[in-house]
Amino acid sequence: MRQAGRSLPEYRALRGTGSILEAIADPEIAAEVTLQPVRRYGVDAAILFSDIVVPFHALGFGVDVVPGRGPVVAEPFRSAADLERLRPLTEDDITHVTATVDRVVVELGDTTPLIGFAGAPFTVASYLVEGAPTREFGVIKTLMHSDPTLYDALMDRVVETTVTFLRAQVAHGASALQLFDSWAGSLTRDEYRRFAQPATERVLAALADLNVPTILFGVGTGELLVDMASCGSSVLGIDWHVDLDEGRRRAGKPVQGNLDPARCLGSADLAVDAAREVLHHAGRDTGHIFNLGHGVIPHTNPDVLAAVVDVVHNEGKAGVR
Amino acid sequence: MRQAGRSLPEYRALRGTGSILEAIADPEIAAEVTLQPVRRYGVDAAILFSDIVVPFHALGFGVDVVPGRGPVVAEPFRSAADLERLRPLTEDDITHVTATVDRVVVELGDTTPLIGFAGAPFTVASYLVEGAPTREFGVIKTLMHSDPTLYDALMDRVVETTVTFLRAQVAHGASALQLFDSWAGSLTRDEYRRFAQPATERVLAALADLNVPTILFGVGTGELLVDMASCGSSVLGIDWHVDLDEGRRRAGKPVQGNLDPARCLGSADLAVDAAREVLHHAGRDTGHIFNLGHGVIPHTNPDVLAAVVDVVHNEGKAGVR
Repeated sequence: MRQAGRSLPEYRALRGTGSILEAIADPEIAAEVTLQPVRRYGVDAAILFSDIVVPFHALGFGVDVVPGRGPVVAEPFRSAADLERLRPLTEDDITHVTATVDRVVVELGDTTPLIGFAGAPFTVASYLVEGAPTREFGVIKTLMHSDPTLYDALMDRVVETTVTFLRAQVAHGASALQLFDSWAGSLTRDEYRRFAQPATERVLAALADLNVPTILFGVGTGELLVDMASCGSSVLGIDWHVDLDEGRRRAGKPVQGNLDPARCLGSADLAVDAAREVLHHAGRDTGHIFNLGHGVIPHTNPDVLAAVVDVVHNEGKAGVR
Repeated sequence: MRQAGRSLPEYRALRGTGSILEAIADPEIAAEVTLQPVRRYGVDAAILFSDIVVPFHALGFGVDVVPGRGPVVAEPFRSAADLERLRPLTEDDITHVTATVDRVVVELGDTTPLIGFAGAPFTVASYLVEGAPTREFGVIKTLMHSDPTLYDALMDRVVETTVTFLRAQVAHGASALQLFDSWAGSLTRDEYRRFAQPATERVLAALADLNVPTILFGVGTGELLVDMASCGSSVLGIDWHVDLDEGRRRAGKPVQGNLDPARCLGSADLAVDAAREVLHHAGRDTGHIFNLGHGVIPHTNPDVLAAVVDVVHNEGKAGVR
């Protein structure tokens, strides 16, 4: 479960109220926060405590994550001159992340895999260009249509950094990788195919020799699933808007999802009913990894999530179905 | 174009900074604001300046629209006792709205029709239950699944009020009606069919004898288009996430849309290119009403919208295609 930790009291106690980037910078805290949901829920995999802006913060692009607001860039990417501010990422830039991975894989041992992650290039670029959270993506859409050459040059830099960041996580012991294209759903299908898909394909192609499973995640991406499925990931995430059967049909490969996280905001019984609906739709076929269709909502009651994990373990099949 | 007025300087000058409900309460202001985009852009229809909470404000449910935040309910709907706070709407409650319609239709004359509107029942209920803007809809989803009987009783009241509100607009001269199900896209397909579709069908059935065209609008509703199309409206709105051809196929009836409003945030040339893409996809077939796929973004440059209207008039076909 993505962001499963943030609804935990032990997480809030450890993390305090500062920027998430401060907690990520401290491998002791970041490793502990990564492990908390595994201990609490007994989920089948850990997902690295990180943020999609981490590698770009690390190379000095001037991005911060403001509590209650999200990623904010002091000087957003707006012209060719800004390309110079996106120098190649080196392993030295991300020793805090690789040290966290080192600690986590030792703690997890052989029984529970660690999933590393990064943002997919379009979503990362949208943060760098917009400079602040948006629902409209007007700046990056204007950039892609008005100056596709500059947009492509930006994507080249983002791809390079993303590949370095993900390969380092695997080199230090991550067993699988997830690419979060959280904002791909803002695009038309034509825009996705021209301005997002090629860069995502290049990232995934550059990971192929590592032989680790990869998951490509989006939300609000029902119309894009066929195109996302052709990007080369092992697994495709699907949200709750798409029926599981239809999502599988469009993906043509294993899918991960698709419980609406809002169904976990009521009682444990209601959430268990909702999880059983997903299990029922999944049926006995393989090729479904149970998960929420999006991140855990911060005010979710941990006991409700524990009940969901239990029903999946007891009534579903563990791991890839 | 929905909310076409709010990016106009003449709108901001007239409206001031108070609650939109104050402006709606004054037929002179509300009529003028309705007419402003028609004068500025020469669009083919006016849409009433109103808000989906207007009838529920009028019957005293205690809802306000807070500038920069949205609809806020002092005491949200949470239990059976709250049903009593939803008394039947009467024509006396909405004389400010019907007086606005009276003024507008006189000003518009016979050449330009007025589109009246209301919220679709699920979207209205979500405001009444949540009490404040939400991205998760956790309270109403919990209500529908935990107490479907109470949820259905709420929807009964909302349907009744919505029908009264819409019929009054037609009685005073509105030539078409639009139902905004702005938040239907938060639901799974199963939820839509059980908890939103029946009430929408009842509203549309109760308007059938009026013989006015009806438009059912949603955003993020790609997976729901087949179900929404069966609700009985004359026309179905489609956003920009769905390709126009695919949207038409799912709707099986005329569609309205589907230009991404974010494509109007750059230069006029870029917006004209975007409008031409929609016209190209629409081709020469009938059954497409050009529109944005969602409301106008407030900081849109009016000159850009004027250029979009011009290219549609010059290169598309006026009215229903």
